[in-house]
Amino acid sequence: MSKLAPLVQQLIEALRVLPGVGPKSAQRMAFNLLERNREGGERLGAALTLAMDKVGHCQCCRTFCETDICALCADPLRQQAGTLCVVGSASDQLAIEHTGQFSGLYFVLMGYISPLDGIGPAELGLDRLDKQLAKGHISEVILATNPTVEGDATAFYLAELCHKYQIPVTRLAQGVPVGGELEYIDGTTLSHAFSGRKTF
Amino acid sequence: MSKLAPLVQQLIEALRVLPGVGPKSAQRMAFNLLERNREGGERLGAALTLAMDKVGHCQCCRTFCETDICALCADPLRQQAGTLCVVGSASDQLAIEHTGQFSGLYFVLMGYISPLDGIGPAELGLDRLDKQLAKGHISEVILATNPTVEGDATAFYLAELCHKYQIPVTRLAQGVPVGGELEYIDGTTLSHAFSGRKTF
Repeated sequence: MSKLAPLVQQLIEALRVLPGVGPKSAQRMAFNLLERNREGGERLGAALTLAMDKVGHCQCCRTFCETDICALCADPLRQQAGTLCVVGSASDQLAIEHTGQFSGLYFVLMGYISPLDGIGPAELGLDRLDKQLAKGHISEVILATNPTVEGDATAFYLAELCHKYQIPVTRLAQGVPVGGELEYIDGTTLSHAFSGRKTF
Repeated sequence: MSKLAPLVQQLIEALRVLPGVGPKSAQRMAFNLLERNREGGERLGAALTLAMDKVGHCQCCRTFCETDICALCADPLRQQAGTLCVVGSASDQLAIEHTGQFSGLYFVLMGYISPLDGIGPAELGLDRLDKQLAKGHISEVILATNPTVEGDATAFYLAELCHKYQIPVTRLAQGVPVGGELEYIDGTTLSHAFSGRKTF
């Protein structure tokens, strides 16, 4: 690699911050942009610089947003819905938004409680959530954390918080995914699906 | 996607200029940088802006380089070697450099002759190559174009150019790749390997 021009080398190394991009892909990306799409590369450079600098967190729900309050939190219809969905990340929030099933407010944890990594309730902004619940406008909290150890631990903590204010808490149903084949579904999921069976 | 903050949306769209990055990957990349690596994102933004602006082509060999003449072309040892290897792209040049087998000069076409796409000898800078060959410092031209239709067509054109100056032309050997299994190698490659067989 030492035979490359310094700026090209620097670009290839910088591209490796992207998730899933190794040395070969980074090289392909750099050469592709330099050869075929300098304009696109410049646009990407400008978008990155701007976004890294200006995008912060919504003061209400902690999602990514360049204003104080995000568009969803500012929507009066959503405020009136009285439901609050707690998700682990902005991508999870987006996935739920895409279903079109939910029209309440969100709270985006941006991580899960994980004492070993030094992530406690304070790092997830749960003091802010506490204050929001204390106001009494929320009639149901939906826990949409990942069905993993950290997600479950965080869900238990959040449930405690809601119990404090006597707010009903629900959790996303666990069961067999649509299109999945029973033969290949793990035992824990299958037993969740069994115990959560519904009248047909 | 409309529910995203404009700058985040803009970043996701800009990331799609990268080869092999679709909407889902672009979203993952954007969120990953915003959540975990703002510094890396800023560095990437700056590297892109700088590289797209400053990286041009070497006036000798056309490879990517931010100075007039690249480091390889400026190397007196390489100039004295008297061999010139013609490759299709900067990545091909890098692949050959990594073998450590070649210590002469390069000429990087940055494409292949393709009349349907409007790419002729002028677009590949072959007038510049012509001038370089005319100087008489080159004692062998190695054609390392891709073994594809465009690569072969370009190789024929280049061979003509060399014949004009009576410069010996060689081409990379075609045959079975190391580690390949004969059973799965295509017929054309196998017949090339047969006709090019060597004393053992």
